[in-house]
Amino acid sequence: MRWPDGFIAVDWGTTNRRAYRLDPGGSCDGEFEDGQGVLSVTPEEFPEAVAEIRRRLGDLPLLLAGMVGSNRGWIEAPYVPCPAGLDDLAAHLVWPAEREAIVPGVSFVGDSRADVMRGEEVQLLGAVAAGHVPVDSLVCHPGTHNKWVVVENGRIESFRTVMTGELFNLLRQHSILADLLKTDAEPDEAFRRGVRHGLDRDDLTSDLFAVRARVLLGEARREDAASYTSGLLIGSDVRIGLSGNGATTVCVMGRPELTRLYAAAIREAGRDANELDGEQSFLSGIQAIATRI
Amino acid sequence: MRWPDGFIAVDWGTTNRRAYRLDPGGSCDGEFEDGQGVLSVTPEEFPEAVAEIRRRLGDLPLLLAGMVGSNRGWIEAPYVPCPAGLDDLAAHLVWPAEREAIVPGVSFVGDSRADVMRGEEVQLLGAVAAGHVPVDSLVCHPGTHNKWVVVENGRIESFRTVMTGELFNLLRQHSILADLLKTDAEPDEAFRRGVRHGLDRDDLTSDLFAVRARVLLGEARREDAASYTSGLLIGSDVRIGLSGNGATTVCVMGRPELTRLYAAAIREAGRDANELDGEQSFLSGIQAIATRI
Repeated sequence: MRWPDGFIAVDWGTTNRRAYRLDPGGSCDGEFEDGQGVLSVTPEEFPEAVAEIRRRLGDLPLLLAGMVGSNRGWIEAPYVPCPAGLDDLAAHLVWPAEREAIVPGVSFVGDSRADVMRGEEVQLLGAVAAGHVPVDSLVCHPGTHNKWVVVENGRIESFRTVMTGELFNLLRQHSILADLLKTDAEPDEAFRRGVRHGLDRDDLTSDLFAVRARVLLGEARREDAASYTSGLLIGSDVRIGLSGNGATTVCVMGRPELTRLYAAAIREAGRDANELDGEQSFLSGIQAIATRI
Repeated sequence: MRWPDGFIAVDWGTTNRRAYRLDPGGSCDGEFEDGQGVLSVTPEEFPEAVAEIRRRLGDLPLLLAGMVGSNRGWIEAPYVPCPAGLDDLAAHLVWPAEREAIVPGVSFVGDSRADVMRGEEVQLLGAVAAGHVPVDSLVCHPGTHNKWVVVENGRIESFRTVMTGELFNLLRQHSILADLLKTDAEPDEAFRRGVRHGLDRDDLTSDLFAVRARVLLGEARREDAASYTSGLLIGSDVRIGLSGNGATTVCVMGRPELTRLYAAAIREAGRDANELDGEQSFLSGIQAIATRI
Protein backbone atom coordinates (compact mmCIF):
# COMPACT_ATOMS: atom_id res chain seq x y z
CA MET A 1 0.00 0.00 0.00
CA ARG A 2 1.19 3.46 -0.97
CA TRP A 3 -0.04 4.94 2.35
CA PRO A 4 2.06 3.42 5.19
CA ASP A 5 0.67 5.80 7.85
CA GLY A 6 -2.97 4.95 7.14
CA PHE A 7 -5.56 7.20 5.47
CA ILE A 8 -8.95 8.88 5.88
CA ALA A 9 -11.95 7.19 4.22
CA VAL A 10 -14.94 9.39 3.35
CA ASP A 11 -18.43 8.22 2.41
CA TRP A 12 -19.58 11.53 0.88
CA GLY A 13 -23.23 11.43 -0.09
CA THR A 14 -25.84 13.85 -1.37
CA THR A 15 -26.91 15.21 2.02
CA ASN A 16 -24.33 13.83 4.52
CA ARG A 17 -20.67 12.93 4.78
CA ARG A 18 -19.06 10.39 7.10
CA ALA A 19 -15.26 10.38 7.59
CA TYR A 20 -13.19 7.61 9.24
CA ARG A 21 -9.44 7.59 10.11
CA LEU A 22 -8.03 4.14 9.39
CA ASP A 23 -4.69 3.11 10.90
CA PRO A 24 -2.13 1.09 8.85
CA GLY A 25 -3.79 -2.13 10.05
CA GLY A 26 -7.20 -0.99 8.78
CA SER A 27 -8.76 -0.27 12.19
CA CYS A 28 -10.86 2.87 12.64
CA ASP A 29 -9.49 5.12 15.39
CA GLY A 30 -11.42 8.34 14.75
CA GLU A 31 -14.54 9.41 12.87
CA PHE A 32 -17.20 12.08 12.43
CA GLU A 33 -20.41 12.66 10.50
CA ASP A 34 -21.94 15.98 9.45
CA GLY A 35 -24.47 17.52 7.08
CA GLN A 36 -21.94 18.82 4.52
CA GLY A 37 -23.31 16.64 1.73
CA VAL A 38 -22.39 17.23 -1.89
CA LEU A 39 -25.40 19.46 -2.52
CA SER A 40 -24.28 21.94 0.17
CA VAL A 41 -20.75 22.38 -1.24
CA THR A 42 -20.02 24.35 -4.44
CA PRO A 43 -17.22 23.09 -6.74
CA GLU A 44 -14.84 25.86 -5.57
CA GLU A 45 -15.48 24.99 -1.91
CA PHE A 46 -14.34 21.35 -2.11
CA PRO A 47 -10.62 22.00 -1.37
CA GLU A 48 -11.60 23.82 1.84
CA ALA A 49 -14.17 21.10 2.74
CA VAL A 50 -11.39 18.53 2.29
CA ALA A 51 -8.94 20.61 4.37
CA GLU A 52 -11.51 20.71 7.16
CA ILE A 53 -11.64 16.90 7.23
CA ARG A 54 -7.84 16.83 7.71
CA ARG A 55 -8.03 19.43 10.48
CA ARG A 56 -10.46 17.17 12.33
CA LEU A 57 -8.88 13.75 11.70
CA GLY A 58 -5.21 14.41 10.82
CA ASP A 59 -2.96 15.21 7.84
CA LEU A 60 -3.40 11.92 5.99
CA PRO A 61 -4.24 10.89 2.41
CA LEU A 62 -7.96 10.77 1.57
CA LEU A 63 -9.95 8.09 -0.27
CA LEU A 64 -13.41 9.42 -1.17
CA ALA A 65 -16.50 7.50 -2.31
CA GLY A 66 -20.09 8.37 -3.15
CA MET A 67 -21.72 11.35 -4.87
CA VAL A 68 -18.54 13.40 -4.41
CA GLY A 69 -17.49 11.74 -7.69
CA SER A 70 -20.71 12.62 -9.56
CA ASN A 71 -21.32 15.51 -11.95
CA ARG A 72 -22.67 17.47 -8.97
CA GLY A 73 -19.61 16.65 -6.82
CA TRP A 74 -15.95 17.70 -6.70
CA ILE A 75 -14.51 16.03 -9.78
CA GLU A 76 -16.42 13.51 -11.89
CA ALA A 77 -15.15 9.94 -11.66
CA PRO A 78 -16.65 8.19 -14.74
CA TYR A 79 -18.70 5.02 -14.18
CA VAL A 80 -16.90 1.66 -14.51
CA PRO A 81 -19.09 -0.74 -16.54
CA CYS A 82 -20.23 -4.14 -15.22
CA PRO A 83 -18.80 -6.64 -14.49
CA ALA A 84 -16.86 -4.63 -11.88
CA GLY A 85 -14.82 -5.78 -8.88
CA LEU A 86 -12.48 -4.12 -6.41
CA ASP A 87 -9.57 -4.34 -8.90
CA ASP A 88 -11.62 -2.42 -11.46
CA LEU A 89 -12.58 0.31 -8.99
CA ALA A 90 -8.95 0.67 -7.82
CA ALA A 91 -7.70 0.84 -11.41
CA HIS A 92 -10.09 3.70 -12.25
CA LEU A 93 -9.62 5.99 -9.26
CA VAL A 94 -9.63 9.68 -10.15
CA TRP A 95 -6.94 11.82 -8.46
CA PRO A 96 -7.80 15.49 -7.83
CA ALA A 97 -4.30 15.87 -6.30
CA GLU A 98 -1.48 13.59 -5.19
CA ARG A 99 -2.97 12.68 -1.82
CA GLU A 100 -6.70 12.47 -2.69
CA ALA A 101 -8.43 9.79 -4.75
CA ILE A 102 -12.12 9.38 -5.71
CA VAL A 103 -13.68 5.94 -6.22
CA PRO A 104 -15.74 5.65 -9.46
CA GLY A 105 -19.36 4.50 -9.61
CA VAL A 106 -20.57 1.48 -11.60
CA SER A 107 -22.85 1.37 -14.65
CA PHE A 108 -24.93 -1.37 -16.25
CA VAL A 109 -26.29 -1.45 -19.80
CA GLY A 110 -28.11 -4.56 -20.99
CA ASP A 111 -31.50 -6.35 -21.09
CA SER A 112 -32.89 -3.14 -22.75
CA ARG A 113 -32.05 -1.30 -19.54
CA ALA A 114 -29.46 1.18 -18.26
CA ASP A 115 -28.57 1.80 -14.63
CA VAL A 116 -26.00 3.52 -12.39
CA MET A 117 -24.79 3.32 -8.78
CA ARG A 118 -22.36 5.47 -6.82
CA GLY A 119 -21.42 4.65 -3.22
CA GLU A 120 -23.17 1.29 -2.81
CA GLU A 121 -20.41 -0.53 -4.77
CA VAL A 122 -17.85 0.04 -1.96
CA GLN A 123 -20.14 -1.38 0.74
CA LEU A 124 -21.17 -4.28 -1.43
CA LEU A 125 -17.72 -5.38 -2.60
CA GLY A 126 -16.43 -4.74 0.93
CA ALA A 127 -18.92 -7.23 2.31
CA VAL A 128 -17.80 -9.75 -0.33
CA ALA A 129 -14.12 -9.12 0.55
CA ALA A 130 -14.91 -9.58 4.26
CA GLY A 131 -16.62 -12.90 3.54
CA HIS A 132 -20.06 -11.67 4.68
CA VAL A 133 -21.56 -11.95 1.20
CA PRO A 134 -20.92 -15.06 -0.95
CA VAL A 135 -18.96 -14.50 -4.18
CA ASP A 136 -22.05 -15.68 -6.10
CA SER A 137 -25.16 -14.11 -4.59
CA LEU A 138 -28.09 -11.73 -4.84
CA VAL A 139 -27.82 -8.58 -2.71
CA CYS A 140 -30.57 -6.11 -1.85
CA HIS A 141 -29.30 -2.67 -0.76
CA PRO A 142 -32.25 -0.49 0.35
CA GLY A 143 -32.01 3.29 0.70
CA THR A 144 -33.43 6.28 -1.17
CA HIS A 145 -32.87 4.16 -4.27
CA ASN A 146 -32.84 0.42 -3.59
CA LYS A 147 -30.26 -1.60 -5.55
CA TRP A 148 -30.69 -5.29 -6.46
CA VAL A 149 -27.20 -6.55 -7.26
CA VAL A 150 -26.21 -9.84 -8.89
CA VAL A 151 -22.69 -10.82 -7.66
CA GLU A 152 -20.76 -13.39 -9.71
CA ASN A 153 -17.18 -14.49 -8.96
CA GLY A 154 -16.98 -11.68 -6.42
CA ARG A 155 -17.75 -8.95 -8.98
CA ILE A 156 -20.89 -6.90 -9.69
CA GLU A 157 -22.32 -8.70 -12.72
CA SER A 158 -25.50 -6.64 -13.12
CA PHE A 159 -27.85 -4.56 -10.99
CA ARG A 160 -31.18 -2.82 -10.99
CA THR A 161 -32.38 0.27 -9.12
CA VAL A 162 -35.92 0.69 -7.75
CA MET A 163 -36.81 4.14 -6.41
CA THR A 164 -38.98 2.88 -3.56
CA GLY A 165 -37.50 5.01 -0.76
CA GLU A 166 -37.77 8.25 -2.71
CA LEU A 167 -41.36 7.50 -3.78
CA PHE A 168 -42.40 6.74 -0.20
CA ASN A 169 -40.86 10.02 0.96
CA LEU A 170 -42.58 11.98 -1.85
CA LEU A 171 -45.93 10.46 -0.93
CA ARG A 172 -45.33 11.14 2.74
CA GLN A 173 -44.26 14.75 2.33
CA HIS A 174 -46.27 16.10 -0.60
CA SER A 175 -49.13 13.83 -1.72
CA ILE A 176 -52.83 13.43 -0.96
CA LEU A 177 -51.76 10.49 1.27
CA ALA A 178 -49.48 12.71 3.41
CA ASP A 179 -51.77 12.92 6.44
CA LEU A 180 -52.15 9.11 6.45
CA LEU A 181 -48.39 8.45 6.34
CA LYS A 182 -47.16 10.38 9.39
CA THR A 183 -46.34 7.27 11.45
CA ASP A 184 -43.35 4.99 10.82
CA ALA A 185 -43.82 1.75 8.90
CA GLU A 186 -43.47 -1.42 10.98
CA PRO A 187 -43.15 -5.03 9.74
CA ASP A 188 -46.60 -5.86 11.14
CA GLU A 189 -49.65 -7.60 9.68
CA ALA A 190 -50.73 -4.48 7.73
CA PHE A 191 -47.23 -4.29 6.22
CA ARG A 192 -47.32 -7.95 5.20
CA ARG A 193 -50.76 -7.51 3.65
CA GLY A 194 -49.35 -4.65 1.57
CA VAL A 195 -46.33 -6.80 0.64
CA ARG A 196 -48.58 -9.63 -0.59
CA HIS A 197 -50.52 -7.20 -2.80
CA GLY A 198 -47.27 -5.74 -4.14
CA LEU A 199 -45.85 -9.21 -4.84
CA ASP A 200 -48.99 -10.46 -6.58
CA ARG A 201 -50.23 -7.51 -8.57
CA ASP A 202 -48.80 -4.92 -10.90
CA ASP A 203 -51.22 -2.08 -10.19
CA LEU A 204 -49.16 0.03 -7.79
CA THR A 205 -50.34 3.44 -9.03
CA SER A 206 -53.93 2.35 -8.51
CA ASP A 207 -53.34 0.56 -5.20
CA LEU A 208 -51.72 3.70 -3.77
CA PHE A 209 -54.83 5.83 -4.32
CA ALA A 210 -56.94 3.05 -2.80
CA VAL A 211 -55.07 3.50 0.50
CA ARG A 212 -57.03 6.71 1.07
CA ALA A 213 -60.30 5.36 -0.35
CA ARG A 214 -60.17 2.32 1.94
CA VAL A 215 -59.81 4.53 5.02
CA LEU A 216 -62.57 6.94 3.89
CA LEU A 217 -64.97 4.03 3.34
CA GLY A 218 -64.11 2.25 6.60
CA GLU A 219 -62.46 -0.69 4.79
CA ALA A 220 -59.08 -0.15 6.48
CA ARG A 221 -57.79 1.44 9.70
CA ARG A 222 -56.14 4.86 9.45
CA GLU A 223 -53.33 3.77 11.80
CA ASP A 224 -52.41 0.90 9.43
CA ALA A 225 -51.98 3.15 6.37
CA ALA A 226 -48.23 3.85 6.70
CA SER A 227 -47.23 0.20 7.20
CA TYR A 228 -49.62 -0.98 4.46
CA THR A 229 -48.34 1.62 1.97
CA SER A 230 -44.72 0.80 2.77
CA GLY A 231 -45.61 -2.87 2.26
CA LEU A 232 -47.19 -2.15 -1.14
CA LEU A 233 -44.07 -0.32 -2.36
CA ILE A 234 -41.55 -2.80 -0.90
CA GLY A 235 -43.60 -5.79 -2.11
CA SER A 236 -43.59 -4.38 -5.63
CA ASP A 237 -39.83 -3.71 -5.27
CA VAL A 238 -39.13 -7.30 -4.12
CA ARG A 239 -41.22 -8.68 -7.00
CA ILE A 240 -39.00 -6.77 -9.45
CA GLY A 241 -35.79 -7.75 -7.64
CA LEU A 242 -36.50 -11.48 -7.39
CA SER A 243 -37.88 -11.73 -10.94
CA GLY A 244 -35.64 -14.01 -13.02
CA ASN A 245 -33.30 -14.82 -10.12
CA GLY A 246 -33.62 -18.12 -8.26
CA ALA A 247 -31.44 -17.29 -5.23
CA THR A 248 -32.83 -19.02 -2.14
CA THR A 249 -31.14 -16.52 0.19
CA VAL A 250 -30.86 -12.76 -0.33
CA CYS A 251 -28.25 -10.62 1.50
CA VAL A 252 -29.92 -7.40 2.67
CA MET A 253 -27.45 -4.61 3.42
CA GLY A 254 -28.04 -1.12 4.78
CA ARG A 255 -29.55 0.71 7.75
CA PRO A 256 -31.29 -1.68 10.18
CA GLU A 257 -34.64 0.18 10.12
CA LEU A 258 -34.81 -0.50 6.36
CA THR A 259 -33.20 -3.95 6.18
CA ARG A 260 -35.74 -5.40 8.63
CA LEU A 261 -38.63 -4.27 6.39
CA TYR A 262 -37.01 -5.69 3.25
CA ALA A 263 -36.05 -8.91 5.05
CA ALA A 264 -39.68 -9.37 6.15
CA ALA A 265 -40.89 -8.80 2.59
CA ILE A 266 -38.33 -11.21 1.10
CA ARG A 267 -39.42 -13.90 3.58
CA GLU A 268 -43.06 -13.20 2.62
CA ALA A 269 -41.96 -14.02 -0.96
CA GLY A 270 -40.68 -17.41 0.21
CA ARG A 271 -36.93 -16.70 0.22
CA ASP A 272 -34.47 -16.40 3.12
CA ALA A 273 -32.90 -13.05 4.03
CA ASN A 274 -29.57 -12.28 5.77
CA GLU A 275 -29.30 -8.77 7.21
CA LEU A 276 -25.91 -6.99 7.12
CA ASP A 277 -24.67 -3.66 8.50
CA GLY A 278 -23.73 -1.25 5.71
CA GLU A 279 -21.27 0.93 7.65
CA GLN A 280 -18.90 -1.93 8.58
CA SER A 281 -19.02 -3.15 4.98
CA PHE A 282 -18.03 0.30 3.72
CA LEU A 283 -14.89 0.22 5.88
CA SER A 284 -13.98 -3.27 4.62
CA GLY A 285 -14.44 -2.12 1.03
CA ILE A 286 -12.53 1.12 1.23
CA GLN A 287 -9.64 -0.63 3.02
CA ALA A 288 -9.58 -3.29 0.29
CA ILE A 289 -9.38 -0.57 -2.40
CA ALA A 290 -6.59 1.26 -0.51
CA THR A 291 -4.45 -1.89 -0.40
CA ARG A 292 -4.66 -2.05 -4.21
CA ILE A 293 -3.32 1.48 -4.79
CA MET B 1 -87.76 21.97 -11.77
CA ARG B 2 -87.95 23.75 -8.44
CA TRP B 3 -85.86 26.66 -9.75
CA PRO B 4 -87.88 28.45 -12.49
CA ASP B 5 -85.47 31.41 -12.71
CA GLY B 6 -82.40 29.24 -13.35
CA PHE B 7 -79.53 28.60 -10.93
CA ILE B 8 -75.79 28.85 -10.45
CA ALA B 9 -73.73 25.67 -10.96
CA VAL B 10 -70.38 25.46 -9.18
CA ASP B 11 -67.59 22.96 -9.87
CA TRP B 12 -65.70 23.51 -6.60
CA GLY B 13 -62.45 21.60 -6.50
CA THR B 14 -59.45 21.36 -4.22
CA THR B 15 -57.53 24.31 -5.68
CA ASN B 16 -60.00 26.09 -7.99
CA ARG B 17 -63.69 26.87 -8.35
CA ARG B 18 -65.66 27.49 -11.53
CA ALA B 19 -69.14 29.01 -11.36
CA TYR B 20 -71.71 29.20 -14.19
CA ARG B 21 -75.09 30.97 -14.27
CA LEU B 22 -77.60 28.79 -16.13
CA ASP B 23 -80.83 30.32 -17.45
CA PRO B 24 -84.16 28.40 -17.20
CA GLY B 25 -83.43 26.77 -20.55
CA GLY B 26 -80.05 25.48 -19.34
CA SER B 27 -77.86 27.91 -21.31
CA CYS B 28 -74.86 29.47 -19.61
CA ASP B 29 -75.05 33.29 -19.62
CA GLY B 30 -72.34 34.19 -17.11
CA GLU B 31 -69.35 32.50 -15.50
CA PHE B 32 -66.09 32.98 -13.63
CA GLU B 33 -63.18 30.92 -12.34
CA ASP B 34 -60.89 31.72 -9.43
CA GLY B 35 -58.36 30.17 -7.06
CA GLN B 36 -60.71 29.88 -4.05
CA GLY B 37 -60.50 26.10 -3.93
CA VAL B 38 -61.72 24.12 -0.95
CA LEU B 39 -58.28 24.08 0.67
CA SER B 40 -58.17 27.89 0.83
CA VAL B 41 -61.56 28.25 2.58
CA THR B 42 -62.11 27.36 6.27
CA PRO B 43 -65.46 25.80 7.28
CA GLU B 44 -66.67 29.09 8.82
CA GLU B 45 -65.80 31.03 5.67
CA PHE B 46 -68.03 29.01 3.29
CA PRO B 47 -71.22 31.11 3.77
CA GLU B 48 -69.25 34.23 2.79
CA ALA B 49 -67.55 32.42 -0.13
CA VAL B 50 -71.04 31.38 -1.33
CA ALA B 51 -72.38 34.92 -0.86
CA GLU B 52 -69.54 36.21 -3.03
CA ILE B 53 -70.59 33.89 -5.87
CA ARG B 54 -74.10 35.40 -5.71
CA ARG B 55 -72.70 38.94 -5.71
CA ARG B 56 -70.85 38.13 -8.94
CA LEU B 57 -73.51 36.07 -10.78
CA GLY B 58 -76.85 37.01 -9.22
CA ASP B 59 -79.16 36.04 -6.34
CA LEU B 60 -80.06 32.54 -7.56
CA PRO B 61 -80.11 29.03 -6.02
CA LEU B 62 -76.75 27.19 -6.04
CA LEU B 63 -76.00 23.60 -7.04
CA LEU B 64 -72.47 22.67 -5.92
CA ALA B 65 -70.33 19.71 -6.97
CA GLY B 66 -66.79 18.51 -6.24
CA MET B 67 -64.60 18.58 -3.14
CA VAL B 68 -66.90 21.16 -1.53
CA GLY B 69 -68.87 18.08 -0.39
CA SER B 70 -65.84 16.28 1.08
CA ASN B 71 -64.72 16.12 4.70
CA ARG B 72 -62.42 19.07 3.94
CA GLY B 73 -65.23 21.07 2.31
CA TRP B 74 -68.32 22.94 3.48
CA ILE B 75 -70.64 20.13 4.53
CA GLU B 76 -69.95 16.48 3.86
CA ALA B 77 -72.19 14.82 1.28
CA PRO B 78 -71.75 11.05 1.87
CA TYR B 79 -70.73 8.89 -1.09
CA VAL B 80 -73.48 7.15 -3.07
CA PRO B 81 -72.43 3.53 -3.75
CA CYS B 82 -72.23 2.05 -7.28
CA PRO B 83 -74.23 1.48 -9.38
CA ALA B 84 -75.07 5.19 -9.43
CA GLY B 85 -76.93 7.31 -11.99
CA LEU B 86 -78.27 10.86 -12.15
CA ASP B 87 -81.42 9.83 -10.24
CA ASP B 88 -79.27 8.50 -7.38
CA LEU B 89 -77.18 11.67 -7.21
CA ALA B 90 -80.31 13.88 -7.23
CA ALA B 91 -81.95 11.75 -4.51
CA HIS B 92 -78.94 12.16 -2.19
CA LEU B 93 -78.25 15.88 -2.49
CA VAL B 94 -77.24 17.49 0.82
CA TRP B 95 -78.87 20.86 1.59
CA PRO B 96 -76.82 23.30 3.73
CA ALA B 97 -79.79 25.72 3.45
CA GLU B 98 -82.98 26.02 1.42
CA ARG B 99 -81.36 27.47 -1.69
CA GLU B 100 -78.06 25.52 -1.77
CA ALA B 101 -77.56 21.85 -2.58
CA ILE B 102 -74.36 19.76 -2.71
CA VAL B 103 -74.02 16.79 -5.11
CA PRO B 104 -72.66 13.62 -3.40
CA GLY B 105 -69.61 11.69 -4.62
CA VAL B 106 -69.68 8.03 -5.66
CA SER B 107 -67.98 5.03 -3.99
CA PHE B 108 -67.08 1.55 -5.20
CA VAL B 109 -66.32 -1.49 -3.04
CA GLY B 110 -65.70 -4.84 -4.75
CA ASP B 111 -63.06 -7.04 -6.45
CA SER B 112 -61.03 -6.68 -3.19
CA ARG B 113 -60.81 -2.96 -3.89
CA ALA B 114 -62.31 0.28 -2.60
CA ASP B 115 -62.46 3.56 -4.47
CA VAL B 116 -64.04 7.03 -4.37
CA MET B 117 -64.73 9.89 -6.77
CA ARG B 118 -66.07 13.39 -6.22
CA GLY B 119 -66.72 15.79 -9.10
CA GLU B 120 -66.04 13.51 -12.04
CA GLU B 121 -69.46 11.81 -11.70
CA VAL B 122 -71.30 14.98 -12.82
CA GLN B 123 -69.19 15.36 -15.98
CA LEU B 124 -69.42 11.69 -16.77
CA LEU B 125 -73.15 11.24 -16.32
CA GLY B 126 -73.68 14.60 -18.05
CA ALA B 127 -71.90 13.29 -21.13
CA VAL B 128 -74.12 10.19 -21.04
CA ALA B 129 -77.26 12.35 -20.68
CA ALA B 130 -76.14 14.53 -23.60
CA GLY B 131 -75.64 11.43 -25.77
CA HIS B 132 -71.87 11.94 -26.12
CA VAL B 133 -71.03 8.77 -24.18
CA PRO B 134 -72.89 5.51 -24.92
CA VAL B 135 -75.02 4.09 -22.06
CA ASP B 136 -72.73 1.04 -22.05
CA SER B 137 -69.11 2.13 -22.32
CA LEU B 138 -65.66 2.52 -20.83
CA VAL B 139 -64.66 6.07 -19.94
CA CYS B 140 -61.20 7.38 -19.08
CA HIS B 141 -61.20 10.68 -17.15
CA PRO B 142 -57.61 11.93 -16.69
CA GLY B 143 -56.65 14.58 -14.16
CA THR B 144 -54.67 14.64 -10.92
CA HIS B 145 -56.26 11.23 -10.31
CA ASN B 146 -57.31 9.44 -13.47
CA LYS B 147 -60.63 7.55 -13.27
CA TRP B 148 -61.48 4.51 -15.41
CA VAL B 149 -65.27 4.21 -15.31
CA VAL B 150 -67.44 1.31 -16.49
CA VAL B 151 -70.85 2.69 -17.53
CA GLU B 152 -73.77 0.22 -17.78
CA ASN B 153 -77.35 1.19 -18.61
CA GLY B 154 -76.33 4.82 -18.24
CA ARG B 155 -75.13 4.39 -14.64
CA ILE B 156 -71.65 4.18 -13.09
CA GLU B 157 -71.28 0.42 -12.56
CA SER B 158 -67.71 0.42 -11.22
CA PHE B 159 -64.56 2.53 -11.45
CA ARG B 160 -60.90 2.58 -10.62
CA THR B 161 -58.57 5.47 -9.80
CA VAL B 162 -54.92 5.67 -10.90
CA MET B 163 -52.85 8.49 -9.40
CA THR B 164 -50.80 9.13 -12.54
CA GLY B 165 -51.15 12.92 -12.66
CA GLU B 166 -50.20 13.41 -9.03
CA LEU B 167 -47.18 11.09 -9.34
CA PHE B 168 -45.95 12.91 -12.45
CA ASN B 169 -46.25 16.25 -10.63
CA LEU B 170 -44.42 14.90 -7.56
CA LEU B 171 -41.58 13.61 -9.74
CA ARG B 172 -41.45 16.88 -11.63
CA GLN B 173 -41.41 19.12 -8.58
CA HIS B 174 -39.51 17.21 -5.89
CA SER B 175 -37.65 14.14 -7.19
CA ILE B 176 -34.18 13.34 -8.50
CA LEU B 177 -35.78 13.47 -11.98
CA ALA B 178 -36.96 17.06 -11.49
CA ASP B 179 -34.33 18.72 -13.70
CA LEU B 180 -35.12 16.26 -16.52
CA LEU B 181 -38.88 16.92 -16.44
CA LYS B 182 -39.04 20.69 -16.91
CA THR B 183 -40.46 20.52 -20.43
CA ASP B 184 -44.04 19.54 -21.28
CA ALA B 185 -44.86 16.01 -22.39
CA GLU B 186 -45.85 15.68 -26.05
CA PRO B 187 -47.45 12.66 -27.81
CA ASP B 188 -44.25 12.15 -29.83
CA GLU B 189 -42.08 9.07 -30.53
CA ALA B 190 -40.39 9.25 -27.08
CA PHE B 191 -43.84 9.32 -25.45
CA ARG B 192 -45.02 6.31 -27.45
CA ARG B 193 -41.82 4.40 -26.55
CA GLY B 194 -42.58 5.07 -22.86
CA VAL B 195 -46.20 3.99 -23.40
CA ARG B 196 -45.11 0.68 -24.94
CA HIS B 197 -42.86 -0.03 -21.94
CA GLY B 198 -45.66 0.87 -19.52
CA LEU B 199 -48.15 -1.33 -21.40
CA ASP B 200 -45.79 -4.32 -21.57
CA ARG B 201 -44.00 -4.35 -18.24
CA ASP B 202 -44.92 -3.98 -14.61
CA ASP B 203 -41.67 -2.45 -13.34
CA LEU B 204 -42.64 1.22 -13.15
CA THR B 205 -40.65 2.06 -9.99
CA SER B 206 -37.52 0.68 -11.63
CA ASP B 207 -38.18 2.17 -15.09
CA LEU B 208 -38.56 5.63 -13.52
CA PHE B 209 -35.05 5.60 -12.03
CA ALA B 210 -33.70 4.35 -15.36
CA VAL B 211 -34.88 7.59 -17.01
CA ARG B 212 -31.97 9.38 -15.31
CA ALA B 213 -29.49 6.54 -15.79
CA ARG B 214 -30.22 6.37 -19.54
CA VAL B 215 -29.49 10.08 -19.94
CA LEU B 216 -26.29 9.90 -17.80
CA LEU B 217 -24.99 7.00 -19.88
CA GLY B 218 -25.91 8.54 -23.24
CA GLU B 219 -28.59 5.91 -23.94
CA ALA B 220 -31.38 8.50 -24.21
CA ARG B 221 -31.67 12.19 -25.05
CA ARG B 222 -32.23 14.62 -22.18
CA GLU B 223 -34.89 16.51 -24.17
CA ASP B 224 -36.95 13.30 -24.54
CA ALA B 225 -37.10 12.58 -20.80
CA ALA B 226 -40.38 14.39 -19.99
CA SER B 227 -42.35 12.80 -22.84
CA TYR B 228 -40.83 9.35 -22.20
CA THR B 229 -41.59 9.53 -18.44
CA SER B 230 -45.14 10.70 -19.08
CA GLY B 231 -45.49 7.81 -21.53
CA LEU B 232 -44.24 5.29 -18.94
CA LEU B 233 -46.79 6.48 -16.37
CA ILE B 234 -49.72 6.78 -18.80
CA GLY B 235 -48.85 3.43 -20.45
CA SER B 236 -48.94 1.74 -17.05
CA ASP B 237 -52.22 3.55 -16.29
CA VAL B 238 -53.81 2.41 -19.58
CA ARG B 239 -52.66 -1.18 -18.93
CA ILE B 240 -54.51 -1.11 -15.59
CA GLY B 241 -57.58 0.58 -17.08
CA LEU B 242 -58.01 -1.76 -20.06
CA SER B 243 -57.29 -4.90 -18.05
CA GLY B 244 -60.35 -7.13 -17.99
CA ASN B 245 -62.41 -4.82 -20.24
CA GLY B 246 -62.85 -5.60 -23.92
CA ALA B 247 -64.23 -2.21 -25.05
CA THR B 248 -63.04 -1.47 -28.58
CA THR B 249 -63.54 2.29 -28.11
CA VAL B 250 -62.74 4.31 -24.99
CA CYS B 251 -64.30 7.74 -24.32
CA VAL B 252 -61.58 10.07 -22.98
CA MET B 253 -62.95 13.09 -21.14
CA GLY B 254 -61.13 16.04 -19.58
CA ARG B 255 -58.75 18.85 -20.45
CA PRO B 256 -57.52 18.64 -24.07
CA GLU B 257 -53.79 18.71 -23.11
CA LEU B 258 -54.36 15.50 -21.11
CA THR B 259 -56.94 13.75 -23.28
CA ARG B 260 -54.65 13.88 -26.34
CA LEU B 261 -51.89 12.06 -24.40
CA TYR B 262 -54.30 9.39 -23.10
CA ALA B 263 -55.94 9.01 -26.52
CA ALA B 264 -52.50 8.43 -28.08
CA ALA B 265 -51.67 5.81 -25.42
CA ILE B 266 -55.02 4.03 -25.84
CA ARG B 267 -54.47 3.85 -29.61
CA GLU B 268 -50.95 2.47 -28.97
CA ALA B 269 -52.74 -0.29 -26.99
CA GLY B 270 -54.82 -1.16 -30.06
CA ARG B 271 -58.12 0.44 -29.06
CA ASP B 272 -59.96 3.48 -30.44
CA ALA B 273 -60.30 6.68 -28.40
CA ASN B 274 -62.95 9.42 -28.57
CA GLU B 275 -61.93 12.72 -26.94
CA LEU B 276 -64.60 14.78 -25.14
CA ASP B 277 -64.56 18.21 -23.49
CA GLY B 278 -65.08 17.94 -19.72
CA GLU B 279 -66.46 21.45 -19.09
CA GLN B 280 -69.40 21.12 -21.48
CA SER B 281 -70.20 17.70 -19.98
CA PHE B 282 -70.22 19.20 -16.47
CA LEU B 283 -72.89 21.71 -17.55
CA SER B 284 -75.00 18.93 -19.13
CA GLY B 285 -74.75 16.89 -15.94
CA ILE B 286 -75.49 19.60 -13.45
CA GLN B 287 -78.50 20.75 -15.54
CA ALA B 288 -79.76 17.15 -15.65
CA ILE B 289 -79.52 16.92 -11.84
CA ALA B 290 -81.29 20.28 -11.40
CA THR B 291 -84.23 19.10 -13.48
CA ARG B 292 -84.64 16.16 -11.05
CA ILE B 293 -84.90 18.34 -7.93
